[in-house]
Amino acid sequence: MELSEILCHVDHTNLKVDAVWKDIQALVDEAIRYQCASVCIQPSFVKQAAEYAAKRVKICTVIGFPNGYNTVEAKCFEASQAVNDGAEEIDMVINVGWLKAGLDEKVTEEIKAVKKACQGRLLKVIIEACLLTEEEKIRVCRAVSAAGADYIKTSTGFSVGGAAFEDVALMRKYSDPAVKVKAAGGIRSIEDAQEFLRLGADRLGTSSLVKIAIQNEKEEA
Amino acid sequence: MELSEILCHVDHTNLKVDAVWKDIQALVDEAIRYQCASVCIQPSFVKQAAEYAAKRVKICTVIGFPNGYNTVEAKCFEASQAVNDGAEEIDMVINVGWLKAGLDEKVTEEIKAVKKACQGRLLKVIIEACLLTEEEKIRVCRAVSAAGADYIKTSTGFSVGGAAFEDVALMRKYSDPAVKVKAAGGIRSIEDAQEFLRLGADRLGTSSLVKIAIQNEKEEA
Repeated sequence: MELSEILCHVDHTNLKVDAVWKDIQALVDEAIRYQCASVCIQPSFVKQAAEYAAKRVKICTVIGFPNGYNTVEAKCFEASQAVNDGAEEIDMVINVGWLKAGLDEKVTEEIKAVKKACQGRLLKVIIEACLLTEEEKIRVCRAVSAAGADYIKTSTGFSVGGAAFEDVALMRKYSDPAVKVKAAGGIRSIEDAQEFLRLGADRLGTSSLVKIAIQNEKEEA
Repeated sequence: MELSEILCHVDHTNLKVDAVWKDIQALVDEAIRYQCASVCIQPSFVKQAAEYAAKRVKICTVIGFPNGYNTVEAKCFEASQAVNDGAEEIDMVINVGWLKAGLDEKVTEEIKAVKKACQGRLLKVIIEACLLTEEEKIRVCRAVSAAGADYIKTSTGFSVGGAAFEDVALMRKYSDPAVKVKAAGGIRSIEDAQEFLRLGADRLGTSSLVKIAIQNEKEEA
Protein backbone atom coordinates (compact mmCIF):
# COMPACT_ATOMS: atom_id res chain seq x y z
CA MET A 1 0.00 0.00 0.00
CA GLU A 2 1.32 3.41 -1.04
CA LEU A 3 1.86 6.12 1.60
CA SER A 4 -0.78 8.31 -0.10
CA GLU A 5 -3.35 5.53 0.34
CA ILE A 6 -2.36 5.06 3.98
CA LEU A 7 -2.75 8.79 4.65
CA CYS A 8 -6.47 8.59 3.79
CA HIS A 9 -6.80 6.43 6.92
CA VAL A 10 -4.90 8.84 9.19
CA ASP A 11 -6.38 11.08 11.85
CA HIS A 12 -3.54 13.61 11.78
CA THR A 13 -3.12 14.23 15.50
CA ASN A 14 -1.82 16.88 17.87
CA LEU A 15 -3.12 16.43 21.41
CA LYS A 16 -0.13 17.97 23.17
CA VAL A 17 -0.96 19.88 26.35
CA ASP A 18 1.16 22.87 25.29
CA ALA A 19 -0.01 23.11 21.66
CA VAL A 20 -0.73 26.66 20.47
CA TRP A 21 -2.92 27.86 17.62
CA LYS A 22 -0.12 28.00 15.06
CA ASP A 23 0.61 24.29 15.72
CA ILE A 24 -3.04 23.45 15.09
CA GLN A 25 -3.17 25.64 11.99
CA ALA A 26 -0.11 23.82 10.58
CA LEU A 27 -1.74 20.49 11.40
CA VAL A 28 -4.90 21.46 9.50
CA ASP A 29 -2.86 22.67 6.50
CA GLU A 30 -0.93 19.40 6.40
CA ALA A 31 -4.05 17.25 6.75
CA ILE A 32 -5.68 19.09 3.84
CA ARG A 33 -2.58 18.78 1.69
CA TYR A 34 -2.16 15.05 2.33
CA GLN A 35 -5.91 14.30 2.32
CA CYS A 36 -6.00 12.78 5.79
CA ALA A 37 -9.25 11.40 7.20
CA SER A 38 -9.32 14.15 9.85
CA VAL A 39 -7.31 16.31 12.21
CA CYS A 40 -7.56 15.17 15.81
CA ILE A 41 -7.19 18.12 18.19
CA GLN A 42 -8.04 19.33 21.71
CA PRO A 43 -11.58 20.61 22.44
CA SER A 44 -10.56 24.21 23.13
CA PHE A 45 -9.38 24.66 19.49
CA VAL A 46 -12.33 22.95 17.74
CA LYS A 47 -14.32 26.08 16.93
CA GLN A 48 -11.35 28.02 15.57
CA ALA A 49 -10.06 25.00 13.63
CA ALA A 50 -13.47 24.28 12.11
CA GLU A 51 -13.73 27.87 10.89
CA TYR A 52 -10.19 27.77 9.52
CA ALA A 53 -10.59 24.35 7.85
CA ALA A 54 -13.91 25.40 6.29
CA LYS A 55 -14.85 21.77 5.48
CA ARG A 56 -11.57 21.07 3.66
CA VAL A 57 -10.78 18.47 6.31
CA LYS A 58 -12.87 16.95 9.08
CA ILE A 59 -12.33 18.05 12.68
CA CYS A 60 -12.04 15.28 15.26
CA THR A 61 -11.75 15.97 19.00
CA VAL A 62 -11.46 14.10 22.28
CA ILE A 63 -13.96 13.77 25.13
CA GLY A 64 -13.38 12.67 28.72
CA PHE A 65 -9.77 12.61 27.65
CA PRO A 66 -7.42 11.05 28.52
CA ASN A 67 -8.52 9.59 31.86
CA GLY A 68 -12.13 8.74 31.04
CA TYR A 69 -13.36 9.19 34.61
CA ASN A 70 -15.43 12.29 34.10
CA THR A 71 -19.15 11.98 34.75
CA VAL A 72 -21.49 10.78 31.99
CA GLU A 73 -23.12 14.22 31.98
CA ALA A 74 -19.76 15.98 31.55
CA LYS A 75 -18.84 13.71 28.62
CA CYS A 76 -22.20 14.40 26.98
CA PHE A 77 -21.83 18.14 27.53
CA GLU A 78 -18.35 18.09 25.97
CA ALA A 79 -19.51 15.99 22.99
CA SER A 80 -22.52 18.18 22.35
CA GLN A 81 -20.48 21.37 22.51
CA ALA A 82 -17.80 19.90 20.23
CA VAL A 83 -20.43 19.03 17.62
CA ASN A 84 -21.93 22.50 17.90
CA ASP A 85 -18.42 23.96 17.51
CA GLY A 86 -17.96 22.02 14.25
CA ALA A 87 -16.47 18.65 15.19
CA GLU A 88 -17.52 15.84 12.86
CA GLU A 89 -15.80 13.07 14.79
CA ILE A 90 -15.65 12.45 18.54
CA ASP A 91 -13.12 10.20 20.28
CA MET A 92 -14.27 9.43 23.83
CA VAL A 93 -12.53 7.45 26.58
CA ILE A 94 -14.44 4.74 28.46
CA ASN A 95 -14.67 4.69 32.26
CA VAL A 96 -11.93 2.10 32.82
CA GLY A 97 -12.78 1.64 36.51
CA TRP A 98 -16.32 0.60 35.64
CA LEU A 99 -14.99 -2.04 33.25
CA LYS A 100 -12.53 -3.25 35.91
CA ALA A 101 -15.44 -3.55 38.37
CA GLY A 102 -17.48 -5.60 35.88
CA LEU A 103 -20.00 -2.80 35.32
CA ASP A 104 -20.12 -3.48 31.57
CA GLU A 105 -23.70 -2.28 31.26
CA LYS A 106 -22.76 1.11 32.70
CA VAL A 107 -19.93 1.29 30.15
CA THR A 108 -22.42 0.56 27.35
CA GLU A 109 -25.01 3.02 28.70
CA GLU A 110 -22.43 5.79 28.90
CA ILE A 111 -21.31 5.22 25.30
CA LYS A 112 -24.97 5.27 24.20
CA ALA A 113 -25.50 8.59 25.99
CA VAL A 114 -22.45 10.15 24.34
CA LYS A 115 -23.48 8.72 20.97
CA LYS A 116 -26.81 10.52 21.35
CA ALA A 117 -25.00 13.76 22.24
CA CYS A 118 -22.97 13.37 19.02
CA GLN A 119 -26.15 14.06 17.00
CA GLY A 120 -25.21 11.65 14.20
CA ARG A 121 -21.50 12.46 14.09
CA LEU A 122 -18.96 9.64 14.17
CA LEU A 123 -18.12 8.25 17.63
CA LYS A 124 -14.88 6.41 18.38
CA VAL A 125 -14.49 4.73 21.76
CA ILE A 126 -11.04 4.54 23.33
CA ILE A 127 -10.58 1.49 25.56
CA GLU A 128 -7.00 2.20 26.80
CA ALA A 129 -6.00 -1.38 26.01
CA CYS A 130 -2.64 -1.14 27.83
CA LEU A 131 -4.50 -1.07 31.17
CA LEU A 132 -6.74 -4.08 30.40
CA THR A 133 -6.42 -7.84 30.75
CA GLU A 134 -7.31 -9.97 27.73
CA GLU A 135 -10.65 -10.88 29.35
CA GLU A 136 -11.41 -7.18 29.91
CA LYS A 137 -10.49 -6.39 26.30
CA ILE A 138 -12.96 -8.99 25.05
CA ARG A 139 -15.69 -7.70 27.37
CA VAL A 140 -15.15 -4.10 26.26
CA CYS A 141 -15.36 -5.08 22.57
CA ARG A 142 -18.83 -6.42 23.35
CA ALA A 143 -19.82 -3.37 25.43
CA VAL A 144 -18.71 -0.97 22.67
CA SER A 145 -20.53 -3.06 20.02
CA ALA A 146 -23.72 -3.19 22.08
CA ALA A 147 -23.67 0.62 22.36
CA GLY A 148 -23.61 1.06 18.59
CA ALA A 149 -20.39 3.08 18.46
CA ASP A 150 -18.80 3.63 15.06
CA TYR A 151 -15.25 2.78 16.07
CA ILE A 152 -13.32 1.09 18.84
CA LYS A 153 -9.89 2.66 19.44
CA THR A 154 -6.84 1.21 21.17
CA SER A 155 -5.26 4.03 23.16
CA THR A 156 -5.13 7.67 24.23
CA GLY A 157 -1.37 7.93 23.83
CA PHE A 158 -1.23 9.29 27.41
CA SER A 159 -1.02 6.01 29.34
CA VAL A 160 1.67 3.36 29.74
CA GLY A 161 1.32 1.94 26.22
CA GLY A 162 0.07 2.68 22.71
CA ALA A 163 -1.30 0.63 19.82
CA ALA A 164 -0.27 -3.04 19.75
CA PHE A 165 -0.76 -5.43 16.81
CA GLU A 166 -2.30 -8.12 19.00
CA ASP A 167 -4.86 -5.66 20.42
CA VAL A 168 -6.02 -4.61 16.95
CA ALA A 169 -6.38 -8.26 15.94
CA LEU A 170 -8.36 -8.97 19.13
CA MET A 171 -10.58 -5.92 18.68
CA ARG A 172 -11.31 -6.90 15.07
CA LYS A 173 -12.14 -10.45 16.19
CA TYR A 174 -14.46 -9.62 19.11
CA SER A 175 -16.16 -6.39 17.97
CA ASP A 176 -19.30 -6.37 15.86
CA PRO A 177 -18.38 -6.29 12.13
CA ALA A 178 -20.13 -2.90 11.86
CA VAL A 179 -17.68 -1.41 14.39
CA LYS A 180 -14.46 -0.21 12.77
CA VAL A 181 -11.09 -0.22 14.51
CA LYS A 182 -8.74 2.70 15.12
CA ALA A 183 -5.14 2.14 16.20
CA ALA A 184 -3.46 5.07 17.96
CA GLY A 185 -0.41 5.75 20.07
CA GLY A 186 3.20 5.31 19.00
CA ILE A 187 2.59 4.56 15.29
CA ARG A 188 5.81 5.87 13.74
CA SER A 189 6.62 3.93 10.52
CA ILE A 190 4.99 3.03 7.21
CA GLU A 191 5.61 -0.65 7.96
CA ASP A 192 3.72 -0.45 11.26
CA ALA A 193 0.87 1.45 9.60
CA GLN A 194 0.59 -1.21 6.88
CA GLU A 195 0.51 -3.98 9.48
CA PHE A 196 -2.21 -2.25 11.54
CA LEU A 197 -4.33 -1.83 8.40
CA ARG A 198 -3.73 -5.45 7.38
CA LEU A 199 -4.87 -6.62 10.82
CA GLY A 200 -8.17 -4.82 10.38
CA ALA A 201 -7.64 -1.22 11.48
CA ASP A 202 -9.49 1.35 9.38
CA ARG A 203 -8.05 4.45 11.03
CA LEU A 204 -4.67 5.35 12.44
CA GLY A 205 -4.12 8.14 14.96
CA THR A 206 -0.62 9.56 14.45
CA SER A 207 1.34 12.59 13.30
CA SER A 208 4.38 10.61 12.13
CA LEU A 209 3.05 9.50 8.74
CA VAL A 210 2.47 13.04 7.47
CA LYS A 211 5.95 13.90 8.73
CA ILE A 212 7.33 11.00 6.67
CA ALA A 213 5.40 12.22 3.60
CA ILE A 214 6.83 15.74 4.05
CA GLN A 215 10.35 14.33 4.47
CA ASN A 216 9.93 12.16 1.33
CA GLU A 217 8.90 15.21 -0.70
CA LYS A 218 11.89 17.16 0.54
CA GLU A 219 14.23 14.35 -0.47
CA GLU A 220 12.63 14.09 -3.91
CA ALA A 221 12.90 17.85 -4.47
CA MET B 1 6.89 18.74 62.46
CA GLU B 2 5.20 15.51 63.50
CA LEU B 3 3.64 13.26 60.85
CA SER B 4 0.19 13.77 62.41
CA GLU B 5 0.57 17.53 61.92
CA ILE B 6 1.72 17.07 58.31
CA LEU B 7 -1.30 14.85 57.57
CA CYS B 8 -3.66 17.79 58.30
CA HIS B 9 -2.16 19.40 55.18
CA VAL B 10 -2.58 16.33 52.95
CA ASP B 11 -5.15 15.91 50.19
CA HIS B 12 -5.12 12.10 50.33
CA THR B 13 -5.19 11.31 46.63
CA ASN B 14 -6.19 8.52 44.26
CA LEU B 15 -6.58 9.73 40.68
CA LYS B 16 -5.67 6.42 39.02
CA VAL B 17 -7.50 5.72 35.77
CA ASP B 18 -8.37 2.18 36.85
CA ALA B 19 -9.47 2.93 40.43
CA VAL B 20 -12.64 1.13 41.52
CA TRP B 21 -15.10 2.02 44.28
CA LYS B 22 -13.45 -0.12 46.94
CA ASP B 23 -10.17 1.80 46.37
CA ILE B 24 -12.00 5.10 46.87
CA GLN B 25 -13.84 3.78 49.92
CA ALA B 26 -10.51 2.74 51.49
CA LEU B 27 -9.07 6.17 50.67
CA VAL B 28 -11.99 7.91 52.42
CA ASP B 29 -11.64 5.64 55.47
CA GLU B 30 -7.92 6.38 55.70
CA ALA B 31 -8.39 10.13 55.27
CA ILE B 32 -10.95 10.16 58.09
CA ARG B 33 -8.72 8.11 60.37
CA TYR B 34 -5.64 10.28 59.81
CA GLN B 35 -7.59 13.57 59.68
CA CYS B 36 -6.39 14.60 56.23
CA ALA B 37 -7.48 17.91 54.72
CA SER B 38 -9.47 16.09 52.01
CA VAL B 39 -9.64 13.09 49.71
CA CYS B 40 -8.81 13.98 46.12
CA ILE B 41 -10.67 11.69 43.71
CA GLN B 42 -12.00 11.46 40.14
CA PRO B 43 -15.28 13.23 39.25
CA SER B 44 -17.25 10.04 38.55
CA PHE B 45 -16.96 8.94 42.20
CA VAL B 46 -17.71 12.30 43.87
CA LYS B 47 -21.39 11.71 44.56
CA GLN B 48 -20.90 8.22 45.97
CA ALA B 49 -17.88 9.32 48.02
CA ALA B 50 -19.69 12.37 49.43
CA GLU B 51 -22.58 10.17 50.57
CA TYR B 52 -20.20 7.63 52.07
CA ALA B 53 -17.98 10.24 53.79
CA ALA B 54 -21.03 12.04 55.21
CA LYS B 55 -18.98 15.17 56.04
CA ARG B 56 -16.37 13.22 58.01
CA VAL B 57 -13.79 14.33 55.43
CA LYS B 58 -13.93 16.86 52.60
CA ILE B 59 -14.25 15.67 49.03
CA CYS B 60 -11.90 17.25 46.49
CA THR B 61 -12.07 16.51 42.76
CA VAL B 62 -10.35 17.48 39.51
CA ILE B 63 -11.67 19.52 36.59
CA GLY B 64 -10.33 19.73 33.02
CA PHE B 65 -7.92 17.12 34.25
CA PRO B 66 -5.15 16.38 33.50
CA ASN B 67 -4.66 18.13 30.13
CA GLY B 68 -6.47 21.40 30.83
CA TYR B 69 -7.47 21.96 27.20
CA ASN B 70 -11.19 21.44 27.59
CA THR B 71 -13.41 24.40 26.82
CA VAL B 72 -14.18 26.99 29.50
CA GLU B 73 -17.83 25.90 29.38
CA ALA B 74 -16.92 22.24 29.91
CA LYS B 75 -14.74 23.11 32.90
CA CYS B 76 -17.55 25.20 34.41
CA PHE B 77 -20.06 22.41 33.80
CA GLU B 78 -17.77 19.89 35.50
CA ALA B 79 -17.09 22.20 38.47
CA SER B 80 -20.76 22.99 38.95
CA GLN B 81 -21.77 19.33 38.81
CA ALA B 82 -18.98 18.37 41.22
CA VAL B 83 -20.19 20.95 43.75
CA ASN B 84 -23.77 19.74 43.36
CA ASP B 85 -22.52 16.17 43.84
CA GLY B 86 -20.90 17.16 47.15
CA ALA B 87 -17.36 18.29 46.34
CA GLU B 88 -16.07 21.00 48.67
CA GLU B 89 -12.77 21.53 46.85
CA ILE B 90 -12.06 21.76 43.12
CA ASP B 91 -8.64 21.35 41.52
CA MET B 92 -8.70 22.67 37.93
CA VAL B 93 -5.95 22.64 35.29
CA ILE B 94 -5.13 25.84 33.37
CA ASN B 95 -5.09 25.96 29.58
CA VAL B 96 -1.32 25.64 29.17
CA GLY B 97 -1.41 26.51 25.44
CA TRP B 98 -3.04 29.87 26.20
CA LEU B 99 -0.28 30.68 28.69
CA LYS B 100 2.38 29.62 26.14
CA ALA B 101 0.75 31.92 23.58
CA GLY B 102 0.82 34.87 26.01
CA LEU B 103 -2.96 34.87 26.44
CA ASP B 104 -2.68 35.49 30.19
CA GLU B 105 -5.97 37.36 30.34
CA LYS B 106 -7.81 34.36 28.88
CA VAL B 107 -6.16 32.19 31.54
CA THR B 108 -7.40 34.58 34.25
CA GLU B 109 -10.89 34.85 32.77
CA GLU B 110 -11.22 31.06 32.61
CA ILE B 111 -10.20 30.69 36.26
CA LYS B 112 -12.71 33.40 37.23
CA ALA B 113 -15.47 31.54 35.36
CA VAL B 114 -14.65 28.25 37.10
CA LYS B 115 -14.42 30.05 40.46
CA LYS B 116 -17.95 31.31 39.90
CA ALA B 117 -19.12 27.78 39.03
CA CYS B 118 -17.61 26.60 42.34
CA GLN B 119 -20.32 28.53 44.22
CA GLY B 120 -18.01 29.50 47.09
CA ARG B 121 -16.15 26.20 47.34
CA LEU B 122 -12.34 26.17 47.41
CA LEU B 123 -10.63 26.43 43.99
CA LYS B 124 -7.07 25.22 43.41
CA VAL B 125 -5.44 26.00 40.08
CA ILE B 126 -2.93 23.53 38.65
CA ILE B 127 -0.26 25.18 36.50
CA GLU B 128 1.64 22.02 35.40
CA ALA B 129 4.94 23.68 36.27
CA CYS B 130 7.06 20.99 34.59
CA LEU B 131 5.91 22.26 31.16
CA LEU B 132 6.63 25.94 31.90
CA THR B 133 9.66 28.20 31.63
CA GLU B 134 10.53 30.37 34.64
CA GLU B 135 9.05 33.43 32.91
CA GLU B 136 5.81 31.51 32.26
CA LYS B 137 5.69 30.36 35.88
CA ILE B 138 5.93 33.97 37.08
CA ARG B 139 3.23 35.07 34.63
CA VAL B 140 0.88 32.30 35.71
CA CYS B 141 1.32 33.18 39.40
CA ARG B 142 0.04 36.65 38.50
CA ALA B 143 -2.81 35.30 36.35
CA VAL B 144 -3.97 32.94 39.11
CA SER B 145 -3.72 35.73 41.72
CA ALA B 146 -5.68 38.15 39.52
CA ALA B 147 -8.46 35.57 39.18
CA GLY B 148 -8.91 35.28 42.95
CA ALA B 149 -8.27 31.54 43.17
CA ASP B 150 -7.76 30.07 46.62
CA TYR B 151 -4.71 27.99 45.77
CA ILE B 152 -2.06 27.61 43.08
CA LYS B 153 -0.90 23.99 42.62
CA THR B 154 2.27 22.67 41.04
CA SER B 155 1.29 19.57 39.04
CA THR B 156 -1.28 17.02 37.94
CA GLY B 157 1.02 14.04 38.47
CA PHE B 158 0.24 12.99 34.87
CA SER B 159 2.89 14.98 33.01
CA VAL B 160 6.68 14.73 32.75
CA GLY B 161 7.36 16.00 36.28
CA GLY B 162 5.84 16.50 39.72
CA ALA B 163 6.33 18.93 42.60
CA ALA B 164 9.74 20.63 42.78
CA PHE B 165 11.08 22.63 45.74
CA GLU B 166 12.16 25.55 43.54
CA ASP B 167 8.67 25.79 41.98
CA VAL B 168 6.99 26.01 45.38
CA ALA B 169 9.43 28.75 46.43
CA LEU B 170 8.77 30.64 43.17
CA MET B 171 4.98 30.25 43.50
CA ARG B 172 5.09 31.52 47.08
CA LYS B 173 7.22 34.49 45.99
CA TYR B 174 5.16 35.61 42.96
CA SER B 175 1.59 34.74 43.99
CA ASP B 176 -0.60 37.09 45.97
CA PRO B 177 -0.19 36.42 49.72
CA ALA B 178 -3.89 35.45 49.87
CA VAL B 179 -3.27 32.60 47.41
CA LYS B 180 -2.09 29.43 49.14
CA VAL B 181 0.24 26.90 47.53
CA LYS B 182 -0.34 23.18 46.98
CA ALA B 183 2.51 20.86 46.04
CA ALA B 184 1.52 17.62 44.29
CA GLY B 185 3.12 14.85 42.29
CA GLY B 186 5.81 12.48 43.51
CA ILE B 187 5.81 13.50 47.21
CA ARG B 188 6.93 10.27 48.89
CA SER B 189 8.78 11.01 52.15
CA ILE B 190 8.24 12.89 55.41
CA GLU B 191 11.42 14.87 54.74
CA ASP B 192 10.14 16.08 51.36
CA ALA B 193 6.77 16.96 52.87
CA GLN B 194 8.45 18.99 55.62
CA GLU B 195 10.58 20.85 53.09
CA PHE B 196 7.54 21.70 50.89
CA LEU B 197 5.70 23.05 53.94
CA ARG B 198 8.76 25.03 55.04
CA LEU B 199 9.00 26.60 51.56
CA GLY B 200 5.43 27.87 51.84
CA ALA B 201 3.14 25.05 50.69
CA ASP B 202 -0.06 24.75 52.70
CA ARG B 203 -1.37 21.57 51.07
CA LEU B 204 0.29 18.42 49.77
CA GLY B 205 -1.32 16.10 47.21
CA THR B 206 -0.06 12.57 47.83
CA SER B 207 -1.06 9.12 49.02
CA SER B 208 2.37 8.20 50.34
CA LEU B 209 2.19 9.99 53.68
CA VAL B 210 -0.87 8.09 54.87
CA LYS B 211 0.86 4.88 53.74
CA ILE B 212 3.85 5.82 55.91
CA ALA B 213 1.54 6.51 58.87
CA ILE B 214 -0.10 3.08 58.43
CA GLN B 215 3.31 1.41 58.20
CA ASN B 216 4.52 3.21 61.34
CA GLU B 217 1.47 1.99 63.27
CA LYS B 218 2.08 -1.59 62.12
CA GLU B 219 5.69 -1.42 63.27
CA GLU B 220 4.68 0.02 66.66
CA ALA B 221 2.04 -2.68 67.16
